[in-house]
Amino acid sequence: MSAQTKPESNALDALRSMLGDRLSTAAAVREQHGKDESYHPSAAPDAVAFARSTQEVAEVVRICAAQKLPVIAFGTGTSLEGHVAALRGGVCVDLSGMDQVLEVNAEDLDCRVQAGVRRKQLNEYLRDTGLFFPIDPGADASLGGMTATRASGTNAVRYGTMRENVLGLTVVLADGRVIRTGGRARKSSAGYDLTRLMVGSEGTLGVITEIQLKLYGIPEAVSSAVCSFETLEGAVNAVIMTIQMGIPVARIELLDEVQMDAINRYSDLHYPPQPTLFFEFHGSDAGVREQTERVGEIASEFGGGDFHWATRPEDRNKLWQARHDAYYAAMALRPGCKGWATDVCVPISRLAECILETRKDIDESGIITPIVGHVGDGNFHLVFLVDTENEKEMKKATAVNDRMVIRALEMGGTCTGEHGIGYGKIEFLKHEHGEGVSVMRQIKQALDPDDLMNPGKIL
Amino acid sequence: MSAQTKPESNALDALRSMLGDRLSTAAAVREQHGKDESYHPSAAPDAVAFARSTQEVAEVVRICAAQKLPVIAFGTGTSLEGHVAALRGGVCVDLSGMDQVLEVNAEDLDCRVQAGVRRKQLNEYLRDTGLFFPIDPGADASLGGMTATRASGTNAVRYGTMRENVLGLTVVLADGRVIRTGGRARKSSAGYDLTRLMVGSEGTLGVITEIQLKLYGIPEAVSSAVCSFETLEGAVNAVIMTIQMGIPVARIELLDEVQMDAINRYSDLHYPPQPTLFFEFHGSDAGVREQTERVGEIASEFGGGDFHWATRPEDRNKLWQARHDAYYAAMALRPGCKGWATDVCVPISRLAECILETRKDIDESGIITPIVGHVGDGNFHLVFLVDTENEKEMKKATAVNDRMVIRALEMGGTCTGEHGIGYGKIEFLKHEHGEGVSVMRQIKQALDPDDLMNPGKIL
Repeated sequence: MSAQTKPESNALDALRSMLGDRLSTAAAVREQHGKDESYHPSAAPDAVAFARSTQEVAEVVRICAAQKLPVIAFGTGTSLEGHVAALRGGVCVDLSGMDQVLEVNAEDLDCRVQAGVRRKQLNEYLRDTGLFFPIDPGADASLGGMTATRASGTNAVRYGTMRENVLGLTVVLADGRVIRTGGRARKSSAGYDLTRLMVGSEGTLGVITEIQLKLYGIPEAVSSAVCSFETLEGAVNAVIMTIQMGIPVARIELLDEVQMDAINRYSDLHYPPQPTLFFEFHGSDAGVREQTERVGEIASEFGGGDFHWATRPEDRNKLWQARHDAYYAAMALRPGCKGWATDVCVPISRLAECILETRKDIDESGIITPIVGHVGDGNFHLVFLVDTENEKEMKKATAVNDRMVIRALEMGGTCTGEHGIGYGKIEFLKHEHGEGVSVMRQIKQALDPDDLMNPGKIL
Repeated sequence: MSAQTKPESNALDALRSMLGDRLSTAAAVREQHGKDESYHPSAAPDAVAFARSTQEVAEVVRICAAQKLPVIAFGTGTSLEGHVAALRGGVCVDLSGMDQVLEVNAEDLDCRVQAGVRRKQLNEYLRDTGLFFPIDPGADASLGGMTATRASGTNAVRYGTMRENVLGLTVVLADGRVIRTGGRARKSSAGYDLTRLMVGSEGTLGVITEIQLKLYGIPEAVSSAVCSFETLEGAVNAVIMTIQMGIPVARIELLDEVQMDAINRYSDLHYPPQPTLFFEFHGSDAGVREQTERVGEIASEFGGGDFHWATRPEDRNKLWQARHDAYYAAMALRPGCKGWATDVCVPISRLAECILETRKDIDESGIITPIVGHVGDGNFHLVFLVDTENEKEMKKATAVNDRMVIRALEMGGTCTGEHGIGYGKIEFLKHEHGEGVSVMRQIKQALDPDDLMNPGKIL
């Protein structure tokens, strides 16, 4: 065996001598790191490097670059479009050991964290400061991963997405250079916005190792409510009206009747199995009161029932836990199935139409598929409950997904509101951005000429 | 004369045959297009092309690219760091004739405009819709220019900057390709954020010809107030506390005693010549009442006097006109002088320190220099009133500016919050972003290999 001359072996030897036990080539570890929470099959890397610092990541990247081995960043593996699959082998850089909150500047409402810090961990860390970090994609994802996929979730309607909440980054580039982008100022006109270029780049332009984040004061008053609607259309139209009126709701989430049935079973709840909106209101006492009155009026105008309130933190947590468990609840509807989560986002005036047409298409396909959505942003998700071995079923689901994405694009929307492209939506990206994709490719080529950073994703 | 063989002549001939009268080589027209509102001297282009459509801009760019002639985009010429100077000659593309509002999607709170539409024109156009576009840099700038410089201004503390308010763009690239970036969805995880890459790129990556913008409902209640403070420190600390409390003020502007004296003279007003905050509150009636009460308490805690209210639109307009005229009012303090406007932005906890040290440094220099600031974002401006022919004076002003920028950078800030780099702050950009600048250069090189798009700016 000419192992000594194979580039993989040379690189792995060098990595092992640097990292010792923190380099793993065990099959189970590699397998786990080649797979996210999606239906996409695992594509295991050649090795997994458990990094502890930006310098170590830079050294790993330099070693891999010298041997032209791909590098794939890994946070918690909760992405949904195959983002972490090592499609061309290479070294997975696991950043979960980089889990330090490096600074909290309470007066300036910002902090800096290592990429492996998880969002719940950050909020626990912040508990005594009166501050919180609002972005909440459901999964307890790492902030590095959330940055790399431009995550958003339930609070985005009020607080924005990772795009709006990342102030700056530390990034290891394809050649091992380390850059700091952005800064701590709230705004800047100093040069190209490298921060925003990296946010959402899915590890294809570099490995994000540190993130400067905006924080927010915990609101004086927080109140959550659940409201069932007679029809899906009524629920969606209530959302549209709420947004158009400029009411600053913190969360406004839709669960359709299939999803409500699922969470009732999964979380032992007893909501009516009808299209339902979950709300959260943030503000002063008076402000929250005012918002809830207005939204209550809107809801009843569109066939909404009474609001079921949760104001105590434990009740609110239970309510939102049920919402966050929607994916697992959906999967429990069909034991043994896989969940294929997909999302689109459209201008809000088209939301009802897009959801209703999609619901009809799903029903005709016969695949159990709940719909949930961060509908305040015009963003909604399907979870196809599929047997991935069943070709006919997969074909049907693929067709429904294709039609939904094309529908969303024709309505002026996007092929993914928050999951990203990974390798599941590359064709749709071309459909959406046309010649723009060639510009993305030029940028990729400039910064990663050997295509080593998470190859096969986005482009 | 071998005019036929000179690339300029070839290109100009081709442009003239396309544009007819809309290509000008008149000295006065060229001179005017090589100069913005700053103290930077004019650098006239070889010709000015008055474009009417994206296709025309693309054709101009293709013709220039073939002869390797620079292309400089021009909106209203209100930039402040020499952005429009034709440092290497070439063709200025004047976009002021592209002044159509292409669509208003009132239900979705967005619109699409041509790059030459000015912000006031847009708001007049929107008047009957109940919507408005909040970004307000003072000057009645074109939306293309505001996008290219990542402008912000008085409302940014509440509504964000152009970075947060541009949904998508039409851009003519250096080779004449036309791309549409972004879209109408409120969020997207579809590929690299080309929109944000173009926002703030100052015409160096392409010519922006159309912009999709977010709009907002005109608030139910709007109220403005002026409050004088005993000390600059007190005024700034009142701002810091207001922001840290999370009070959603729409505008919070500082004018120091020098600036207040200037606007009293210029606008025939009678405010006390003391450090002063201008506020604006947006919201429901109750919400505005609540905000003003809270801010009133904070102000009096830090030595603020009574609030002078303006609630009628005409009174509010007068108040904000005085604020917007600050630059002209400053210049009137020293007839015949030029105004050298410069800005920095720091984390808000360092704002008082940064302004006070800068004020002290100015006073020691002896140059009349008012300070104004969008202080809710940590952003403030100086206007040096200088005789640009006086070398000694320019040297002093340069030294004060250098020290201010370095001070801001050392405090975790940026060398420009909203004016941009142009060719006035290139050295500071390197100081701020170090190796990041080499990444910016790689991107520039990839998208504009012949360095024809507004050469000599940013990089």
